[in-house]
Formats: sequence, structure tokens, C-alpha cells
Amino acid sequence: MTDTENLTEEDRRHKERTRKLKTVVDARIAAAKIDKGLVLVLTGNGKGKSSSAFGMVARTLGYGRTAAVFQFIKSKVDVGERAFLSSQPGVTWENCGEGFTWETQNRQRDIAAAQAGWEKARVALADPAISLVVLDELTYLINYGYLTLEEVLPAIRNRPEMQHVVITGRAAHAEFIELADTVSKIGDEKHAFRNGIKAQPGIDL
Amino acid sequence: MTDTENLTEEDRRHKERTRKLKTVVDARIAAAKIDKGLVLVLTGNGKGKSSSAFGMVARTLGYGRTAAVFQFIKSKVDVGERAFLSSQPGVTWENCGEGFTWETQNRQRDIAAAQAGWEKARVALADPAISLVVLDELTYLINYGYLTLEEVLPAIRNRPEMQHVVITGRAAHAEFIELADTVSKIGDEKHAFRNGIKAQPGIDL
Repeated sequence: MTDTENLTEEDRRHKERTRKLKTVVDARIAAAKIDKGLVLVLTGNGKGKSSSAFGMVARTLGYGRTAAVFQFIKSKVDVGERAFLSSQPGVTWENCGEGFTWETQNRQRDIAAAQAGWEKARVALADPAISLVVLDELTYLINYGYLTLEEVLPAIRNRPEMQHVVITGRAAHAEFIELADTVSKIGDEKHAFRNGIKAQPGIDL
Repeated sequence: MTDTENLTEEDRRHKERTRKLKTVVDARIAAAKIDKGLVLVLTGNGKGKSSSAFGMVARTLGYGRTAAVFQFIKSKVDVGERAFLSSQPGVTWENCGEGFTWETQNRQRDIAAAQAGWEKARVALADPAISLVVLDELTYLINYGYLTLEEVLPAIRNRPEMQHVVITGRAAHAEFIELADTVSKIGDEKHAFRNGIKAQPGIDL
């Protein structure tokens, strides 16, 4: 089939419409010329924040680049993302948390774990060999007062020029939103858990 | 440090508050007893829909399980997710698209590609050996009229009991929302592209 024969009227309208759309899209793509390391914030109450960060780790590895992942809350180490990604060449992985606050019930221990984790993250944020730094569930540490913005923001701002940073967690502080290049707020429209369904391996952990 | 010594008043309040919270959280977790294959819909205009699906592929592989990915629109094959994930043991990967509609400008060819892709997805949706089926950007095919809900919904409804399905794309049809166990609507609060920044390898592709 060539482009001109056998076209219905709908096909022809589609062709004209998409031709015009292409002009618009191409102009937008041409206008986006800047290459830089991005700060992405994935916040909101819905499912998909951490999994999106891990998808970006997979993408990064697809270019032969390196990623460093810091999980600030999760204490379980036998989760799918860690089992699969942490052993990949080019990935460093740190579990910095002792678990959720309601599990530890120990504020001093939580703070010590947060501070120790942040010291490691700070090293990654100064290393130009690391293409992507994932700060998983970092938002909670600020919101709980376990880390201060004064400790965290300068290290992110002063990172290597082409390094990407992904911050995940609910209720991201306004300063993170301000700093970010891209912010997605993931709304929880529906969640299996509320219908009595357990967290599913491969999906939720 | 034991749990009782050296606690400030704030530490003690934290301990009491988190102890109560743990009772609530534990009860909720105990109430969620069902194991089943989930349908997840990741929709909305924000960044993170497909990357979240690929993160779930990584999680799935962490349990030694299998995943099948169908990319219905994207025509570029040299993207990070494909480069890294498609060669992993346990992953099958199909590029079913000819590109965005404004690239092909050919409705009949787009429809043929959609139909051929769907025939392959249908096979995966009948295979109990596949733990996770990703239908990336499927929403557009319904919205454009390239596939009908009558073709798509029964295959998803009648899939193996423990198989998970992730559907991504903007403007998910109400029937997908209805069918889904979990729906996240990813809001676009901020996007680097609108500030002239190119799609970044490892992040956007």
C-alpha cells in the first residue's frame, strides 16, 4: 500500500491531522536543546513512586551507565528490586533504614540510621562516575525531622552537572518541588490493599 | 542504648505514638489476606508511567519470575529499558508500534501494527507461566479506535489467576479504571521538557 492509494476519507483526515501535529511536536522537540542532570521528584500517595525510580535504574543500565540506590526507610532486604538490581554491574545499593517508624518505635535509632545513610548518599552525590542517584523515600526523613533541608539540598544542588537524582516519597517538601526539574504527583485513585489484597511480590515489593 | 534509658520527652512521645500507629498498621496488614493477580493502571499526564512498569519488571525478576512486555506505540528500539531488560532471562519483549501517530501519519498501518501486537499480547495473557504482562501505552490504542474494548477486556479478565497486568498510558478509558485493582493517576506538576531540556537517556528513554 502506498501512501496515496486505498485511503478512506477517515484515513485522509488522519493523515492531514497527524501531519499538522508532527509540525507542532517537531518544533517542541527542536526547542528542547539542553542536556543536563535532572532532579526528579515522585510524590503523592499512589502506587508507582519507587517502582518508577527502579525503572529508571533499568534504563540507566541500558546505556551502560551506573546507578546508586539509597533506600532510606525500607528495612526488608529480601525485596524484588534489591534481589534483581543490586547485583547488576554498575549498581551500588544501600539499605539505610531500620524500617518504618511504627516498627522501630525508636526515634534516636531512626535518626542515627538516617544520618549514616545520608553520609553515604552524600558521597554518591559528589561522584561524577555515578549517572543516577536514587534517594528512595527521602521525603519522610525531612518531614520527620531526621535530616534537615540544610544538610540535603546543597549536596543535591552541587552534584556533578550530568548526574540525575530521583527523590521518592509522599508529601515531598516544597523545597524539593522547587529544586526539581520534573515533579510527578502520583494520585491514589484505587489500591488493591484497600480491598483486602496483600502486597504482591513483583508488584509492591 | 536500651529502649528505656536516655530518652528525651520527644523520644518518649514518639515511642508512644508509633506504638499506637503500629497497632493500626498491623491490623490493616492482617486484614489483607487475599493473593491474586492484579490489574494495575498507570495513567495521567506526568512522567513515571512506563518507568514504573519497568520497575515492576525488575521486581518480578528478583523473584525468579517471568515478564512479557508489549510496547504498543514506541518505535525506537534503542531505548534503555529494552537494551537492559529485554535480554534478561525470563523476559520476552515485543515492540508492537510503528511510532507515534504523528510520525507514521498512516492510520491503516497503525491499526495493522496494533492488531498484530495485540494478537501476541493475547497469547501472553493466556500463559500461566508469565507472572507479569506489561501493556505499555495500550490506552492510546483504545482511544484512537485501533483496538476495541471488546477485543481487549475479555483477554485481561480471563487471564491466569495469579498473573499481574500493568497498563500504561494517558487518559485510560473508564472501563480500564473499572477493571483495575490499583489505579495511579500521575499528575504532571513540572516537566523538564517544558524548560527546554531534552529527553535524557536513563530517565526518559
